[in-house]
Amino acid sequence: MMNTDLQDFSHKRYNILTGEWVLVSPHRTKRPWQGKQEDVANEARPAHDPDCYLCAGNKRINGEQNPNYKDVFIFTNDFAALQVNTKQFSLNEGLLKAESESGICKVICFSPDHSKSLPDMDVKDIVKVVEAWQNEYQTLGAKKEINHVQIFENKGAIMGCSNPHPHGQIWSQSSIPNEVLKKHKSQKKHWDAHKSSLLGNYLVQELQLNERIIYQNEHFVVLTPFWAVWPFEVMIAPKQHQKNILEMNMEEVTAYAEAISVLTNAYDRLFNCSFPYSAGIHQAPTNGEANKHWHWHMSFYPPLLRSATIKKFMVGYEMFGTPQRDITAEQAVDRLKSLIK
Amino acid sequence: MMNTDLQDFSHKRYNILTGEWVLVSPHRTKRPWQGKQEDVANEARPAHDPDCYLCAGNKRINGEQNPNYKDVFIFTNDFAALQVNTKQFSLNEGLLKAESESGICKVICFSPDHSKSLPDMDVKDIVKVVEAWQNEYQTLGAKKEINHVQIFENKGAIMGCSNPHPHGQIWSQSSIPNEVLKKHKSQKKHWDAHKSSLLGNYLVQELQLNERIIYQNEHFVVLTPFWAVWPFEVMIAPKQHQKNILEMNMEEVTAYAEAISVLTNAYDRLFNCSFPYSAGIHQAPTNGEANKHWHWHMSFYPPLLRSATIKKFMVGYEMFGTPQRDITAEQAVDRLKSLIK
Ligand SMILES: O=P(O)(O)O[C@H]1O[C@H](CO)[C@@H](O)[C@H](O)[C@H]1O
Ligand SMILES: O=P(O)(O)O[C@H]1O[C@H](CO)[C@@H](O)[C@H](O)[C@H]1O
Repeated sequence: MMNTDLQDFSHKRYNILTGEWVLVSPHRTKRPWQGKQEDVANEARPAHDPDCYLCAGNKRINGEQNPNYKDVFIFTNDFAALQVNTKQFSLNEGLLKAESESGICKVICFSPDHSKSLPDMDVKDIVKVVEAWQNEYQTLGAKKEINHVQIFENKGAIMGCSNPHPHGQIWSQSSIPNEVLKKHKSQKKHWDAHKSSLLGNYLVQELQLNERIIYQNEHFVVLTPFWAVWPFEVMIAPKQHQKNILEMNMEEVTAYAEAISVLTNAYDRLFNCSFPYSAGIHQAPTNGEANKHWHWHMSFYPPLLRSATIKKFMVGYEMFGTPQRDITAEQAVDRLKSLIK
Repeated sequence: MMNTDLQDFSHKRYNILTGEWVLVSPHRTKRPWQGKQEDVANEARPAHDPDCYLCAGNKRINGEQNPNYKDVFIFTNDFAALQVNTKQFSLNEGLLKAESESGICKVICFSPDHSKSLPDMDVKDIVKVVEAWQNEYQTLGAKKEINHVQIFENKGAIMGCSNPHPHGQIWSQSSIPNEVLKKHKSQKKHWDAHKSSLLGNYLVQELQLNERIIYQNEHFVVLTPFWAVWPFEVMIAPKQHQKNILEMNMEEVTAYAEAISVLTNAYDRLFNCSFPYSAGIHQAPTNGEANKHWHWHMSFYPPLLRSATIKKFMVGYEMFGTPQRDITAEQAVDRLKSLIK
């Protein structure tokens, strides 16, 4: 069934959501590594770190004190890239074009326990994180001036994360970001043509083929998309067509939290380390439109390639041309699948 | 003259070449740094390293011996991501779409001197590198199966460069990469509407404003584009409308080499280190079309943000949303300009 050419010869694969390509060079996996090795910080962390500005009861850099929170704690980013009451202006001067951009950036602590990241947390505690995401998406999205809510997590120093305390971020803003706009357009085009969800149809095909499915439960699929860019990139998506995370019922929230737990635990086993990644949820913009064509999903972009210390560099050719990978999506799936308990 | 709102309030700027946006947060430059610090390898290097597989006379991993080259040395990448005689196939199965991709990847050593990077080389030696680029663009581009030639350099371990010996790469291939396609379309649209070069018109405007020009000589402009993404991103572009590097005459080649020398020396002075970057030349595809709308240019994407050890991470929000920067293009220009001797 599987097209073996994809495992043997260089090719490009098309991303149906963004309309862009990825270059795959399966023959190159034997390349010896002579490049940079990262440090790994694998020391055990205490449950409470007096020097951590995210731990309960501690002071943040701006002098504010965190409450003695028991599960999830959310606050507005002390050094937010986007601000609410910023001056409105626009510039259109020959070939220079700029627009003011306002927004609200928040930090969301997943747990008061400094030592726990998502894979270490109980599913019932991940459920609380998901509920907090739902709540933020709803409240921020309801504001007139917020047309998009980006929920994400940067995990690990290698991903620019400045604090190991388990936390994510939410950047909400007036306009729709580049990457979201690409997916917006592709999904709209498919919806208009077929009156069905692009990602939903894709999931049906993947479930039939069963070549890139890592895990599934009643409501969610955990898979490596055909067009994955990062060596161990994975997507979690609802089987039902849902435009945003608010459409999940309680049972689905638990199934989603379970999927996150299963995946992040497999990740930690892969290279025997606290596995770094950036993860993010793409869902319908909160721009007041129906956005029926949107099918929400969460993607994990992990930088590691061969071990806890060897990462994939998206540089040179990737920056100027097209993302490139050696190990195929199917090879990555086989490894991750074998690590699920 | 300068719009001061751009220096004070968060906004997005439009990239006329790619059609995408960058988020700028000038108020955030005061953010304290708590994140990862890189190692710097600032040790002096010998002119010849017996363990370097790029040095003259040494053996490469595949057993081949490098000649005793005196200036530039080019060979086919021993672990090429693209290969010439690869199987041709295409897959179109429901929502899965893939195409075989063939090509030729080369490595180009800039100098036999292991200790010298571009800023350390004489302009007359950089001229030899430029001539080698011209030659490769022409020869590779003339092949029927090669429709695009990407010339680039990854410099520094932080940019995934596995060997400090001064070298770049050329990946040439049958299809046109994502980033090039974006610029192809924008330039075509402008050309069809105005019968003039999009980038050429932009350069005229920038030269008039003189707010983002770092350096110029008779034939070239070195500037930070209005929409720059990386903290110290810079573009070198010919003042005359030229679609590719073959259109330069001898005098222009020297002026271009000089511009590269001036810029890379300013870079090295910025944080007092051998300044890492990925640099690449975007020019007309070699697909047999006239491509009159193309105006070639070379871009430098350096990762450093605050010092030789603190880089900008393009993660989370950037991966899922839009690239983001704190320091504005104009602030970066002021700093770089002051470092030109
Ligand atoms: O070919 P190199 O230098 O070994 O590898 C480097 O450059 C390539 C092209 O930009 C990238 O694909 C690799 O991830 C990077 O490590
Ligand atoms: O906000 P943090 O965690 O300090 O910063 C990190 O995440 C941001 C959002 O993805 C990025 O813009 C920064 O480059 C990165 O270092």
